[in-house]
Amino acid sequence: MYVSNAWYAAGFSDEIGDGLLPRLICGEPVVLYRRGDGTPVALEDLCCHRMLPLSRGRREGDAVVCGYHGMTFDASGACIRVPGEGRIAPSYHVRSRPAAERHGFVWVWMGAAELADAAAIPDMRWADDPAWAGHQGSMVVGCDYRMVIDNLLDLTHETLVHESTIGNAAVAETPATVEQHGSSVVVSRWIVDHEPAPLWRERIGPGGNCDRWQVISFVYPSNVVIDVGVAPTGTGAPAGDRSRGVNHMLMNVITPETADSTRYYWRSVRNYDIDDPAKTAAARAAAARIFGEDKAVLEAQHAAMSRFPGRPMINLPLDGPSVRVRRIIDGGIAGQTI
Amino acid sequence: MYVSNAWYAAGFSDEIGDGLLPRLICGEPVVLYRRGDGTPVALEDLCCHRMLPLSRGRREGDAVVCGYHGMTFDASGACIRVPGEGRIAPSYHVRSRPAAERHGFVWVWMGAAELADAAAIPDMRWADDPAWAGHQGSMVVGCDYRMVIDNLLDLTHETLVHESTIGNAAVAETPATVEQHGSSVVVSRWIVDHEPAPLWRERIGPGGNCDRWQVISFVYPSNVVIDVGVAPTGTGAPAGDRSRGVNHMLMNVITPETADSTRYYWRSVRNYDIDDPAKTAAARAAAARIFGEDKAVLEAQHAAMSRFPGRPMINLPLDGPSVRVRRIIDGGIAGQTI
Amino acid sequence: MYVSNAWYAAGFSDEIGDGLLPRLICGEPVVLYRRGDGTPVALEDLCCHRMLPLSRGRREGDAVVCGYHGMTFDASGACIRVPGEGRIAPSYHVRSRPAAERHGFVWVWMGAAELADAAAIPDMRWADDPAWAGHQGSMVVGCDYRMVIDNLLDLTHETLVHESTIGNAAVAETPATVEQHGSSVVVSRWIVDHEPAPLWRERIGPGGNCDRWQVISFVYPSNVVIDVGVAPTGTGAPAGDRSRGVNHMLMNVITPETADSTRYYWRSVRNYDIDDPAKTAAARAAAARIFGEDKAVLEAQHAAMSRFPGRPMINLPLDGPSVRVRRIIDGGIAGQTI
Repeated sequence: MYVSNAWYAAGFSDEIGDGLLPRLICGEPVVLYRRGDGTPVALEDLCCHRMLPLSRGRREGDAVVCGYHGMTFDASGACIRVPGEGRIAPSYHVRSRPAAERHGFVWVWMGAAELADAAAIPDMRWADDPAWAGHQGSMVVGCDYRMVIDNLLDLTHETLVHESTIGNAAVAETPATVEQHGSSVVVSRWIVDHEPAPLWRERIGPGGNCDRWQVISFVYPSNVVIDVGVAPTGTGAPAGDRSRGVNHMLMNVITPETADSTRYYWRSVRNYDIDDPAKTAAARAAAARIFGEDKAVLEAQHAAMSRFPGRPMINLPLDGPSVRVRRIIDGGIAGQTI
Repeated sequence: MYVSNAWYAAGFSDEIGDGLLPRLICGEPVVLYRRGDGTPVALEDLCCHRMLPLSRGRREGDAVVCGYHGMTFDASGACIRVPGEGRIAPSYHVRSRPAAERHGFVWVWMGAAELADAAAIPDMRWADDPAWAGHQGSMVVGCDYRMVIDNLLDLTHETLVHESTIGNAAVAETPATVEQHGSSVVVSRWIVDHEPAPLWRERIGPGGNCDRWQVISFVYPSNVVIDVGVAPTGTGAPAGDRSRGVNHMLMNVITPETADSTRYYWRSVRNYDIDDPAKTAAARAAAARIFGEDKAVLEAQHAAMSRFPGRPMINLPLDGPSVRVRRIIDGGIAGQTI
Repeated sequence: MYVSNAWYAAGFSDEIGDGLLPRLICGEPVVLYRRGDGTPVALEDLCCHRMLPLSRGRREGDAVVCGYHGMTFDASGACIRVPGEGRIAPSYHVRSRPAAERHGFVWVWMGAAELADAAAIPDMRWADDPAWAGHQGSMVVGCDYRMVIDNLLDLTHETLVHESTIGNAAVAETPATVEQHGSSVVVSRWIVDHEPAPLWRERIGPGGNCDRWQVISFVYPSNVVIDVGVAPTGTGAPAGDRSRGVNHMLMNVITPETADSTRYYWRSVRNYDIDDPAKTAAARAAAARIFGEDKAVLEAQHAAMSRFPGRPMINLPLDGPSVRVRRIIDGGIAGQTI
């Protein structure tokens, strides 16, 4: 159920440091740390001897010492010491995976190492663009990772799930367009000349009607970047002058853990008042509330699907983007080159 | 393991109102509410689109709006609106089940709708007979529903399980008789000329020995009505004048949830001192204690049976009524008309 | 996965008394109690009627009364009474198992009763030898019982797991020797002329280097006795005069509960300052800390093995004793006479 030849976020850059960070990625246990030179390392988080997670051990230079009997592995996964034993057999090793740091995340390649291509790291460039600033966070959601993607591709759910913040009837009632180029799927919705939803009104300040845009991009294998904003009516349209509006880029970085759980990272940035800590704090609080609402719905949906398996579900026309993305992911799972 | 062509209690009348009440009945998720005219509605508690339970949504007149994307279903289960979509396909619907209200309960028919017959609703007529008054309550018991029925059919368990209230040695030592007519099984026990068990002594007041009766009726598909009381010795026998005694009718309404859980409703009424709130409060407290004792035993028994499956169990002669009832239920499961 | 023709500890002698003690041994529910004459009884902890654990019932002389309907079983497991029933059929009985008391434990034979041989009770004679005194305790560890044995056979884990108490680098770096005679496997390690690990330094008091010994004996089917101590350098060696050192005997009595849990009893005694309660208290506190560290590692290891089944594990030369013991246990499981 996972695309293995792909890069997945293992954590924010600032989560990975001197210690040993355990993560579950596509069902595999991975331990993350940094070498002395700062480059990230990703090893199988299981000692090859008796399967104690290496993350329960400790660092020794660039190596990791298992916390049970002291088997020691370097950053390539090779065993370099067994206390009390002279000979180190070549079979004494743990799997190492390609790891790379980009745009504020450490990424791990879960497939065949020789296929790892840094150019395929998901593009989250707004995360380190000085013109944008914001906040980040993460949570574990108890559902299949594809349900988190579905949820973000179809923002008509905002009308009901987020009605006190970013949802209003106009979102669900405004049709969206879809474009696909290779593995990129872009869903665009332009809500023209409407009273903005509560949170957006707060952000743009008092005034007349606005145009609102939602440009949602699926980023292979499992991420979604959303360009959202509102601007005074007439300036927010596709060819309009957004400079009089407010614009946020929401990077949704989604890492499958198991069939029943997903680690969801977000980094949300804006390109206005970027030095205003009150605006950052307000945006962080809004995100915590909104994503908490999503989590509750997704977990209830996943629980129902798990408890009552095999029941048919219908697709609506508005599920078109999700159907395309599932087809792309299925291709990746089947080993197609994306 | 469930009889589907039958009526099951989904709740007490006063539990079902303006809101959306989720229940699990015979393994199926059902959401209950009332139309504006007060009649009860029972719909599948899963949106046909993405399986979010409809009970997480909200009412709109007699319809239900799914809390995810706003699909709206009327009381027949037909979809009447999809926000942002023009066409409503006939496949957009959720299952509706026959529902009826009688004797203080809302009942749902779990089988083929065309077979639903209001005449088959279990008879709990003492619940709304003004000559009787009492209290009601419910609990979830972690066991197979048939074990709750077994427990009520064989009241010899009172001797040990309820020795501080309604049990004494006389219960277990007095033989019972059994009669069966179709799906009705009636177990009768007459305990003549004994010192009553502690709670009954309290109810009838000080005095000499008493006669005690327990007339237990299985009510298809899964309910048990028990006529119990004590009267001064010589007046409580089958042909006796019970008017000098105290009499309770205990309606045990048992709804299977899953293989491992059962919703157990009780309504316990008496035909004496019916306006005395202190007597009602005492009876309610006694019921909470007694049914809590039953729950502890049933859950320990179910846990042992689940942990050590396949071990043989012996039937004793006193299990005769239970064996008959299991045969009736098995017939209903196999589709026999009862 | 269990040797059935063997004796397992069901509890310390002082845990088994007037009451009914439920235990799970090799996957089987057993209830323990003592007859009026003090001899221990072990019955199947499931009533043969409706499977309520007998341990939820009560004693009546040397018999047990089931807490549901009052079926009563004598110490041989035969039913002697069913309230309200005249006839007791021979099929009304629960399994009784051979039980014996020795060296401060009550032991139960889990196989065919006719093969039970008191001579095969594991030898824990230091537990009631007046020359030795100490403390005892038990805990449930969430892992396969063989992992607890492995852990005790290979004390090189002390270096990392117990580095603040009994571990130091010398343990892991000193080779051990192995001897096997039948089902007895003895691992010996002599750490000569070293600064003792922190807890041993505290026990022997200030001074120069010491010799330390660890003589680990596997006691069929699942126990490990460890003779440990330190003595001034030159006196602790195999042929040395240990009287100037400090010596502890650690009896590890290991009873499988299920595939995922093990009851671990320890009795730890010393042959010096045996009347000093402060030394006993210090030893008890150290044991609680050390065994808690083992439990954390074993449960993390078991969780990883359960979550990621089927992954290969390598054996190191230091696993030799464990490999021998596993072979002995496998022989017992396969029915070989040990």
